[in-house]
Amino acid sequence: MGAFPASCPIPLERYPVITMAHGGGGRLMRDLIDKMFATAFDNRWLREAHDSAALEAGEGRVAFTTDGFVVSPRFFPGGDIGSLAVNGTVNDLAMSGAVPQYLASSLIVEEGLAMDELWRVVSSMARAASEAGVEIVTGDTKVVGHGAGDGVYVTTSGVGRIAAGVDVSPARVRAGDALIVSGDVGRHGVAIMAVREGLEFDTEIESDCAPVHREVRALFDAGVDVHCLRDLTRGGMASAVVEIAQSAGVEVEIEEPKIEVRDEVRAACEMLGLDPLYVANEGRFVAFVPECDTVAAVQAIASAAPEGVAPRVVGRVVDAGPGGSGVMLRSSIGAERALDLLSGEQLPRIC
Amino acid sequence: MGAFPASCPIPLERYPVITMAHGGGGRLMRDLIDKMFATAFDNRWLREAHDSAALEAGEGRVAFTTDGFVVSPRFFPGGDIGSLAVNGTVNDLAMSGAVPQYLASSLIVEEGLAMDELWRVVSSMARAASEAGVEIVTGDTKVVGHGAGDGVYVTTSGVGRIAAGVDVSPARVRAGDALIVSGDVGRHGVAIMAVREGLEFDTEIESDCAPVHREVRALFDAGVDVHCLRDLTRGGMASAVVEIAQSAGVEVEIEEPKIEVRDEVRAACEMLGLDPLYVANEGRFVAFVPECDTVAAVQAIASAAPEGVAPRVVGRVVDAGPGGSGVMLRSSIGAERALDLLSGEQLPRIC
Repeated sequence: MGAFPASCPIPLERYPVITMAHGGGGRLMRDLIDKMFATAFDNRWLREAHDSAALEAGEGRVAFTTDGFVVSPRFFPGGDIGSLAVNGTVNDLAMSGAVPQYLASSLIVEEGLAMDELWRVVSSMARAASEAGVEIVTGDTKVVGHGAGDGVYVTTSGVGRIAAGVDVSPARVRAGDALIVSGDVGRHGVAIMAVREGLEFDTEIESDCAPVHREVRALFDAGVDVHCLRDLTRGGMASAVVEIAQSAGVEVEIEEPKIEVRDEVRAACEMLGLDPLYVANEGRFVAFVPECDTVAAVQAIASAAPEGVAPRVVGRVVDAGPGGSGVMLRSSIGAERALDLLSGEQLPRIC
Repeated sequence: MGAFPASCPIPLERYPVITMAHGGGGRLMRDLIDKMFATAFDNRWLREAHDSAALEAGEGRVAFTTDGFVVSPRFFPGGDIGSLAVNGTVNDLAMSGAVPQYLASSLIVEEGLAMDELWRVVSSMARAASEAGVEIVTGDTKVVGHGAGDGVYVTTSGVGRIAAGVDVSPARVRAGDALIVSGDVGRHGVAIMAVREGLEFDTEIESDCAPVHREVRALFDAGVDVHCLRDLTRGGMASAVVEIAQSAGVEVEIEEPKIEVRDEVRAACEMLGLDPLYVANEGRFVAFVPECDTVAAVQAIASAAPEGVAPRVVGRVVDAGPGGSGVMLRSSIGAERALDLLSGEQLPRIC
């Protein structure tokens, strides 16, 4: 990353926009790869210019994940499709208890996209990868005709290393576990919607888009016996906890007042008719940990969290009653309601 | 794959087409994952329903690759976008000398796609994975609005295992190496173009879409010291050899008459104004091997090749002269022409 250029390394006066030929396997594609991708992501695997990257395996199991990103708009307060794609995949790896190591990038670019805009996305990916301490070691680019895409779609896949002894899975969640949320919820989805709807607030709402693997690492370093982790993306915190409860066959009780939702996010949600518990985040996760590890877990997450972001214990796991597995939310006045997956969708194309 | 259903497991009378909600993180998405993907790709990693798959690492280095597929039309003689995506990524792994093991699937689906058509793609992926002996262990699906895609785009990423001692890379190509092509060239791109242009031939041209890792495995099993491998996708055989020659800093001489192009492919290329050497294939590769291993290499590839497909020695590597690295093609009448990357593209959206 030493010689990382500030502006697009493709001469914009010659190639102001992406053409079909940039995906055709010929010289223009080679130029795009050599000048833009190899420059932004520079590392020894890309310099080998091979079909696959050959990686040193190391000890332990390998975590493997993939995620497509189609967010609209591509640029939003607090992030863009590039940083989102990198952080999203870094976080998926972290959620299996892995140390994220290597990413692969697959772009589907629409003919006519401004070359400089592609550079902004690619350089944002490079910065996010550098900040998260991962390398983008292999990639692919396809170009589709005008009207067969929406600027650029990014699929990032990742591999990481799961240390011996780490076993993070819904199957390990059990009665007595504490449910911790790593920070306030609802910001990413609301930041996207605010741009789409042209909403103005006194305080601009920024996406929480960030890598969370350092918070996860802190949990393991503190000796916490982490049972399960899940990032709170599509479907938000509610869907993540419902899915885990159903997989694990347990009942989870959540105290709604303990969940932090920032005032401006709550106000925007009210305006837009959204439930912040179902709104996507991109830098938040839930952790299920044994009751005896609760304090250590909160301290560990807090020690690695971004400034102004604080983890909280918001609930606990109880034995599934005759009603079966599920999630029960208790409000400030003691009213209870069961959470479930939404039957449809709350917000399209937020990630 | 025991209970693999013949028809779409989503009730088509209720959900005849994909809606935005199928990508929204709620119940419809969960249904799509549980009923369609988990059914088609069934394995223990998917049953864990976690953000990443945790894989046993085994010995040696890990190969990692990704490839996006946007082919139009989605279904063509000899394959479809699903089998293409699986074979393409299996082949990219094989080209680094790896044994392909695990795939990840990321779909970007356009709202309004017929559910049954998605099932045809997904079940084709499952069949291709089964035939290639790999497991699809993790995935993601996003839905974009009508007009922001083209039915379905597939990104497949893969990991495989590179055995100790295997070192396949352009850097190992040297003067004296034989250049072997694993079969006839030009079929995939021409099969796609024939459908697009509505061309009719006496013999239908079928794509050569197929996994090639068994042919690669046969090379190693025969003890051939494989220097470099490359599959002949976008840009065809010519571009693949030019890229390797440039990376390796060598000159490659090719005898054009030794390259097999089927009569109907040659006729279609003439009609369409295409050079078959630049047309994409999806089940062909070149191998650079030491001269002394030439016979063993041809026999090994032939032993594992599909019926009717035969490898041939088509050229050799010589020291780069003062003209620098490159590729020289000698025709049947002895005329020589230098091959280079095409300046643009020959065929859009063939893979």
